[in-house]
Amino acid sequence: MRVALLAHEEFPDRAKTAVGVLRYADHDVVAVLDRETAGDTVHDHVPDVQDAPIVASMNDVDESIDALIIGIAPIGGGLEESWRPDIRTALQQGSDVIAGLHYFLENDAEFRALAEEHGCELWDVRKPREDLGVADGVADSVSADVVLTVGTDCSVGKMTATCELVDAAQERGIDAAMIPTGQTGIMIEGWGNPIDRVVSDFTAGAVEEMILEKGNDHDLLFVEGQGSIIHPAYSAVTCGILHGSMPDALVLCHSVGRDEIHGYDQAIPPVGDYVGLYESLSAPVSEAPVVAGALDTRAAGDDEAARDAIDEYSEALGVPATDPVRFGVGPVLDAL
Amino acid sequence: MRVALLAHEEFPDRAKTAVGVLRYADHDVVAVLDRETAGDTVHDHVPDVQDAPIVASMNDVDESIDALIIGIAPIGGGLEESWRPDIRTALQQGSDVIAGLHYFLENDAEFRALAEEHGCELWDVRKPREDLGVADGVADSVSADVVLTVGTDCSVGKMTATCELVDAAQERGIDAAMIPTGQTGIMIEGWGNPIDRVVSDFTAGAVEEMILEKGNDHDLLFVEGQGSIIHPAYSAVTCGILHGSMPDALVLCHSVGRDEIHGYDQAIPPVGDYVGLYESLSAPVSEAPVVAGALDTRAAGDDEAARDAIDEYSEALGVPATDPVRFGVGPVLDAL
Repeated sequence: MRVALLAHEEFPDRAKTAVGVLRYADHDVVAVLDRETAGDTVHDHVPDVQDAPIVASMNDVDESIDALIIGIAPIGGGLEESWRPDIRTALQQGSDVIAGLHYFLENDAEFRALAEEHGCELWDVRKPREDLGVADGVADSVSADVVLTVGTDCSVGKMTATCELVDAAQERGIDAAMIPTGQTGIMIEGWGNPIDRVVSDFTAGAVEEMILEKGNDHDLLFVEGQGSIIHPAYSAVTCGILHGSMPDALVLCHSVGRDEIHGYDQAIPPVGDYVGLYESLSAPVSEAPVVAGALDTRAAGDDEAARDAIDEYSEALGVPATDPVRFGVGPVLDAL
Repeated sequence: MRVALLAHEEFPDRAKTAVGVLRYADHDVVAVLDRETAGDTVHDHVPDVQDAPIVASMNDVDESIDALIIGIAPIGGGLEESWRPDIRTALQQGSDVIAGLHYFLENDAEFRALAEEHGCELWDVRKPREDLGVADGVADSVSADVVLTVGTDCSVGKMTATCELVDAAQERGIDAAMIPTGQTGIMIEGWGNPIDRVVSDFTAGAVEEMILEKGNDHDLLFVEGQGSIIHPAYSAVTCGILHGSMPDALVLCHSVGRDEIHGYDQAIPPVGDYVGLYESLSAPVSEAPVVAGALDTRAAGDDEAARDAIDEYSEALGVPATDPVRFGVGPVLDAL
């Protein structure tokens, strides 16, 4: 799929989705839209992803695209009216538009009319499909092995670890695929259920449905985890993914220096405690040992300090560990 | 509130909501509508609840009512067209109509027009409020002690235990209240969030919001639990209620003879295992020991066999236990 990424005034630091797509998606990115850095290229800002020109608007995109992806998520999830001309232009050219906003494009009369007129689609990835339902408890019936990333908290690198694992497994010649559960993962993969937005009774079912869809076409599935099993707000989502995916193994993700649940007055227990929590909660539904750890060491300093932090983390968990970005996921794949 | 209960052709055995309201609600039930048993009274069928005449239709209800409650839930949750005349009559008399159907009354053009014309309300209890959000992790800030009923499975008596505990505590002079989380509990109490229908990200938040609403007006709150922490489909809801309510104590509910998760090919672990699972999962958010057990002994046989089953259950849990319906909740209240 050939795409353009809208990231006005936010690229690259506050454009997590755009950078995720550049780094991990199979899409061919023909342009990034950012009126502030227009004229630069992606490599001027992020060297280790696919390159693309940065342009000021859809009018400056010379090549045809299949879709315009909204690659930023403003606080509140609204639609910035300054994006409207770009979305309009994309639709007029017959391109789909993909967004993860709270504001649904398909409820916008102008966009809907243009999409109908030009035969293209509006895809609001935060809007769950209508036909989801309760889990049947049969995700373990697929032929693929299922590995789930779990975490000590939100934003400790579960999506990154999942993407890195899929890429590295494929490089080793393993037929691996990702099961995306959040909006960035869904945009990277081009499909998926936004688990945090489904009806709570369907949380496990919405994951199971994806496993059943893909589990006999691949040898190894990596499920993108969400939240943490002890998160005071989001643990329901975590628990539903754990039981809905019926994993064979878990990879525990953590971030150096994180000692409180982000944004909450709640201590993070010793990381070793999470191993018992996740394993004992999973076991009655599906035996799933924690087989490896993934540690975000950006806060650790240099590579030597990072190695020390990883060693300490590995020892606390009793399994191999790595920083997927800094040192690659080799040790995790070996452990699998 | 003076109410009539619609239970056509299902009273009493397949009218769980109607019987729950008769048994536990403070509402004054002036009639049950069941065209099959019309002419009988409630006591002809269920002796240990408030009595009321059973009539064939709203036209036979002599006294004025505040609300008509749909007290049955057909498979699929649709509206039976044969109920329409009764709902119409209730609205024309200015009565509210309360339903827990998947089919929302407020989306029915005729009902909506009648409700507007006669100044009464349609309340679809399965429809969550629009203003729910994520939890702040502050349910423990209220002055009341919070007790949550948890279970080994669905349908093991959590709602019944919760209602019995509230009633018994009030009889002892304790200012106790119920936090309802399911449709029958909501109809009994006349308020509440249907936790299984909220957006999964808001599961804990929708419980917390209710605790904050009531927690400084009472000394003791009993939160109606849902599902089971190891249920392959519904554990997300259970986990969200556990962390969202930040309980001080748990009461573990179970049913004699239940050895598989109902409807699933999954063994129920030894009941003692649940104590560790619930306590260790709750602890990082809120220390909440399992202080008592509630056992549904209907499948045990006579009272002596029931006592034996309760003794065995109590020993496995290491805490006092009872059957709330057969022997009362005295031992549980004592343990609190």
